[in-house]
Amino acid sequence: MSMERPTSSIEVCFSPLLFPLYDHSDSIVVVVDILRATSSIITAFHHGVERLIPVRTLEEAKSYKDKGYLIAAERDGRVLDFADFGNSPDNFMTEDIRDATIVYSTTNGTQAIQMAGRAHQVLVGGFLNISALADYLSAQQQDVLILCAAWKNKFSLEDSVFAGALTDKLLESGLFHTICDSAHAARDLWLLAEGDLVSYMDKAANRTRLKKLGLDQAIEYCHTRDVTDVIPVLEKGELVLLKRS
Amino acid sequence: MSMERPTSSIEVCFSPLLFPLYDHSDSIVVVVDILRATSSIITAFHHGVERLIPVRTLEEAKSYKDKGYLIAAERDGRVLDFADFGNSPDNFMTEDIRDATIVYSTTNGTQAIQMAGRAHQVLVGGFLNISALADYLSAQQQDVLILCAAWKNKFSLEDSVFAGALTDKLLESGLFHTICDSAHAARDLWLLAEGDLVSYMDKAANRTRLKKLGLDQAIEYCHTRDVTDVIPVLEKGELVLLKRS
Repeated sequence: MSMERPTSSIEVCFSPLLFPLYDHSDSIVVVVDILRATSSIITAFHHGVERLIPVRTLEEAKSYKDKGYLIAAERDGRVLDFADFGNSPDNFMTEDIRDATIVYSTTNGTQAIQMAGRAHQVLVGGFLNISALADYLSAQQQDVLILCAAWKNKFSLEDSVFAGALTDKLLESGLFHTICDSAHAARDLWLLAEGDLVSYMDKAANRTRLKKLGLDQAIEYCHTRDVTDVIPVLEKGELVLLKRS
Repeated sequence: MSMERPTSSIEVCFSPLLFPLYDHSDSIVVVVDILRATSSIITAFHHGVERLIPVRTLEEAKSYKDKGYLIAAERDGRVLDFADFGNSPDNFMTEDIRDATIVYSTTNGTQAIQMAGRAHQVLVGGFLNISALADYLSAQQQDVLILCAAWKNKFSLEDSVFAGALTDKLLESGLFHTICDSAHAARDLWLLAEGDLVSYMDKAANRTRLKKLGLDQAIEYCHTRDVTDVIPVLEKGELVLLKRS
């Protein structure tokens, strides 16, 4: 029986502000913003969107609007008046978006996606596609860095617990190791939360925020595992569907 | 029976890089660097040091040396050649330091102390003085922000678990509340670790780092609760003993 040492590493970054501390040029970066950008993006691809163009500023989003693009945009949980979609997954649960290109700007999620642009590969993750992600990553023999979009750069519980869930799956595969304190902590939080994930999230600040905005119906869905196999990937600054052999 | 709402808030900041995100001007900031700066500083005051001058750069430390001061200085876990002390608590377990002034510079800890300078009050915390800290904080009716010194700005398990332990004590007092995801996460990690703290820390990167440097004998001591009642406080840029009525 061969006992090979696992060769790929896992790291977890709890905030985009900390991202420059990580050497990610050879890593696959998985960007996560559970409530709600990456959950919504995964949902959009599951319903047939062809391309999503993440943009950082509202000015960029507006200039795309002027060119006739569909726009999804929110700030601080509120849909902007010039936008066609908000940032809730249910906005994208429609056949109307099949084969569409949508320009996407949010408070935290899309900025994290753009920030990761120089990595070996940038994937969009969430509970919705976690097993597909874990399977794909396990086949790549590449280091993995999970980037939590957080809330205005502050640690967010739901993103971190997801990072722990993905870390746990990858470590369980035997193909990965970690010496990253954030990854250990995230995994331990996941193991605590796993039995009743939505109840565990009761104390998350983002959940309280969404409740106040009347957007809390998305919470349970965003914490549901394996709704889809789609994995959005960043290619030349745009998100498209990852093609797997 | 009166049911007053707890009025003081607790927040936890996992990295000095994230510190500017927190409004701390009205808060008491507790700086923590369990392995090993704040554990060593507490030990020094327990053994009678009168003043500690935290400095950021080695150049500053050297210029104090030229003026005849005692110097404690390390970088990356190594004692510097011009220094009188390293950064291990056992360096300060001696009567020789009674009434002394020591200039102190470390990789992470003293920089975090200086960064917090504009807060309402800056205290130095660790497992060594945790109950004294909790008692003092509970009597102040002031918001508390726990600043983890981390390792080169990356999340560190031992600092975060301490932050969780202090958060737990303060919440248990009934005089505090928190809506901070980092505080919730840290508390949950503490509740996991509490039963066998030193074993839990086995996976911490800093522990591995200290083992490699032959400095791991400090680890158990640095995780021991309530060795002392002393609380170092920052006054005019220098650490002195907090006087309590």
